[in-house]
Amino acid sequence: MKNLTRRLPIVVAATLLLFSPFAQAVTDNFADIEAQVALQHDAGVQRLQEWIRLPSIAAEDLGFPEGPEHMVTLLQDVGFQHAVVVETDGKPGVFATLDAGAPRTLGVYFMYDVKQFDTTEWSSPPLEAALVEKEGLGMVIMGRGAVNQKGPEMAFLEAIRAIREAGRQLPVNLVLVAEGEEEIGSPHLGQIVNRPDVQAALAGTIGVIMPSASQGRDGIVTVSLGAKGVIEVQLTASGERWGRGPGKDVHSSLKAMIDSPSWHLIHALSTLVSADGNTITIDNYPQPLPVSEAERAMIAEAAKRKNEEQFKEALSTQRWIDDLAFEQALVRLVSQPTVNIEGLVGGYTGPGGKTVLPHKAQAKLDLRLVPDMTAKGALAALEAHLDKHGYGDIEVVMSGGYDPTSTPAEAELIQAQIAVLQAAEIDPIIWPRSAGSYPGYIFTGPPLLLASGHFGLGHGSGAHGPDEYFLIESYNPEVEGWDGAVMSYVQYFYELGKP
Amino acid sequence: MKNLTRRLPIVVAATLLLFSPFAQAVTDNFADIEAQVALQHDAGVQRLQEWIRLPSIAAEDLGFPEGPEHMVTLLQDVGFQHAVVVETDGKPGVFATLDAGAPRTLGVYFMYDVKQFDTTEWSSPPLEAALVEKEGLGMVIMGRGAVNQKGPEMAFLEAIRAIREAGRQLPVNLVLVAEGEEEIGSPHLGQIVNRPDVQAALAGTIGVIMPSASQGRDGIVTVSLGAKGVIEVQLTASGERWGRGPGKDVHSSLKAMIDSPSWHLIHALSTLVSADGNTITIDNYPQPLPVSEAERAMIAEAAKRKNEEQFKEALSTQRWIDDLAFEQALVRLVSQPTVNIEGLVGGYTGPGGKTVLPHKAQAKLDLRLVPDMTAKGALAALEAHLDKHGYGDIEVVMSGGYDPTSTPAEAELIQAQIAVLQAAEIDPIIWPRSAGSYPGYIFTGPPLLLASGHFGLGHGSGAHGPDEYFLIESYNPEVEGWDGAVMSYVQYFYELGKP
Repeated sequence: MKNLTRRLPIVVAATLLLFSPFAQAVTDNFADIEAQVALQHDAGVQRLQEWIRLPSIAAEDLGFPEGPEHMVTLLQDVGFQHAVVVETDGKPGVFATLDAGAPRTLGVYFMYDVKQFDTTEWSSPPLEAALVEKEGLGMVIMGRGAVNQKGPEMAFLEAIRAIREAGRQLPVNLVLVAEGEEEIGSPHLGQIVNRPDVQAALAGTIGVIMPSASQGRDGIVTVSLGAKGVIEVQLTASGERWGRGPGKDVHSSLKAMIDSPSWHLIHALSTLVSADGNTITIDNYPQPLPVSEAERAMIAEAAKRKNEEQFKEALSTQRWIDDLAFEQALVRLVSQPTVNIEGLVGGYTGPGGKTVLPHKAQAKLDLRLVPDMTAKGALAALEAHLDKHGYGDIEVVMSGGYDPTSTPAEAELIQAQIAVLQAAEIDPIIWPRSAGSYPGYIFTGPPLLLASGHFGLGHGSGAHGPDEYFLIESYNPEVEGWDGAVMSYVQYFYELGKP
Repeated sequence: MKNLTRRLPIVVAATLLLFSPFAQAVTDNFADIEAQVALQHDAGVQRLQEWIRLPSIAAEDLGFPEGPEHMVTLLQDVGFQHAVVVETDGKPGVFATLDAGAPRTLGVYFMYDVKQFDTTEWSSPPLEAALVEKEGLGMVIMGRGAVNQKGPEMAFLEAIRAIREAGRQLPVNLVLVAEGEEEIGSPHLGQIVNRPDVQAALAGTIGVIMPSASQGRDGIVTVSLGAKGVIEVQLTASGERWGRGPGKDVHSSLKAMIDSPSWHLIHALSTLVSADGNTITIDNYPQPLPVSEAERAMIAEAAKRKNEEQFKEALSTQRWIDDLAFEQALVRLVSQPTVNIEGLVGGYTGPGGKTVLPHKAQAKLDLRLVPDMTAKGALAALEAHLDKHGYGDIEVVMSGGYDPTSTPAEAELIQAQIAVLQAAEIDPIIWPRSAGSYPGYIFTGPPLLLASGHFGLGHGSGAHGPDEYFLIESYNPEVEGWDGAVMSYVQYFYELGKP
């Protein structure tokens, strides 16, 4: 298998030769678009770098309103006739449409925000978006948002540009919504998507796609049929709310006569999961659906193809939960809800010790949800449990979250992906459900009931951690670089545009 | 009762008139020294301000070697003939002697280090040492170390200076040891005190005193007969040491197949104390001695004199542990060991959430000890308990600590305090044991077996917290300001110098 830009055109041309009723397609080998992609390569990479240098981080109130305004500019620049900032009670969204006069319309979901970062942890500054060499991989852009999600999104936009610059019409119309709060759990996405004009536009689409870098380091592509839901909650115990313990940090010697909100929190937390941390023990917690035979078959197939040792090494992990075999660990990954501690913070957090009895302690949790659990149901069970066990004073703030999402493998949005990949001689792993979360529920749930998924060749890693990157020039013919990623969207548009 | 500088001389003069065999003492009303104290008032306050502006913080490796060098200079300046920096494996100490040709020698314990601070929490910058008005109290110096312990220590030095400047000989010789690691649990104090030259010098003293501001806001003086011991420990759970969980922070969705060191820590902590956080449940933990009748009587007397409501208000606390009555809460304060959480820190600690599964989580604890518990015994029990319960992988680092200390009420060092106070018409609260800790064990334990205690009039508060202060000009005649604090040491020297 060779890089997409050098290989795909011929294969797809053959496909089109056989099936396309359009005169243009019969002779279409995309050579003109491929040439245009190569021509605009440097400028496109620069546009990505400029975007990374303008971070929008909702948790830190950084990069607003510059972020949504730049998003609008990027969309207008590739030909969206309508592109507007949409205000919400939180950070603004963007709504845009591109009418190509095509018979079919594709929905698109973008996020323009990025995760927080700690510059000291990076080997190249996260806002520099420098081109650096990554051993064994190639030249990458390193920066916050490189793969999550600006790199794939910019490649998607460059595909639209290349088609236009090649003198062609886009084979599908586009309806796009972008949000600036994905990294805090999309608390106001509903306020964007549920607007009558946005609903009406989305209702006419064949489904909603999010650009993503779906290739692993080994080039293998995973097509996910959904994603877990999630709620992020901060649990705070304090003397003020408890009515016990101090209302400010006091000298630690007073622990002998004053209660400790920190111990109150520790004991509350210890009731949420089993002693090994892995079985949820929240009373009346919503239960996951059993794993279906189809899901088990997909996971068994995937387990054979994924490299367990590489996976463990990438995660610096020696053992899976309960020392499970790889396939069983993957079943758990796909099917089980979680209660995870993201962070603990209370009292003195500097080097060594400090003799205080803190008045407040906080645990940051995320709870992943699988069908048919709901964000609302999980939160209600957590709150009821704390209340019942004597921890009703602990403040529970849900900072974001949403339900799980699923799309059937038969959906056109998925089948078109598989067709493009197979035409490129890539046999994708079909994966029942991403263990991570994205707010696809807003499209797959009522009233829209659309298909939703991710697509895009190319590779990147480091989302949410340091040294996040997106591959630009690939040393490995099995893994696409920038031009291959752009071309994958070109192929996808033409596949979806088929009558 | 009026301020000491305006009241004490007459009372003490009367005492001396009756009992002193010295010609000088017969006519001694300290008027000359008192005049000198007034004369050097501004310069003394300035010397304190300059000292506060030079913080030494062992936990942050800040202010070394400037701190010990300045300590030596301060001691030489008031007449210590011998004053040297003493190296240790940690921060240096200081050893100094002042030979006044007197028949008796007093040991003195100083700390030149101060607690960490967070400037943003202060109403006046902690290193500015500004003179600010505190409502209802008077003019105070606000700054880190103002009361803990530079203010009282500087007042002590100013007393020595005033006696010399008044043309007199100090009535006692002095042997002083200072350390720069008190705030991290005095891990190397033994290396200073156990030096042959220091041991020999201290062995010849009547006991070791530490200057302190012993007056409450209401002017009441507490004389403590000892202090709890303490160990400070940091407990760290990590994927690296556990062999389970990730070796670096990974995406939180992986919680479904990877163990969590944070949950491991939470469950380990939950085994250390009862569900209410107040009863230690560490297996085979050393037990406290029963409270003696003498101690109960002292506490009962103190409970009558302390103002519970003011105490609660100062601590922002509504209830004592188990809703105990004040006297029972004070019995607990004096007699019970504690396991306190100073701080929790793990994973993401910023605003909102961040979807990571952290590879590491830490709890910072302090464990207060009462007779006959030892620091060594408490640490060993904690480690054995963790090991037995399946948490042997959790790293336990003891950053400092020491045994409890006790001195009998009959000790001359204590009786001299009571005499000075009673002569000033102050009826002190005799307190069995401070709930806070200081390393008096190094003097009261073998081989020295000396008396040890704290003394000094004056008032301050905010040790370890923001807005720490030491009172300079008092609005309340019941509470001594700077000159009164200085004069209290003058009185104490003369009382101890009596043959």
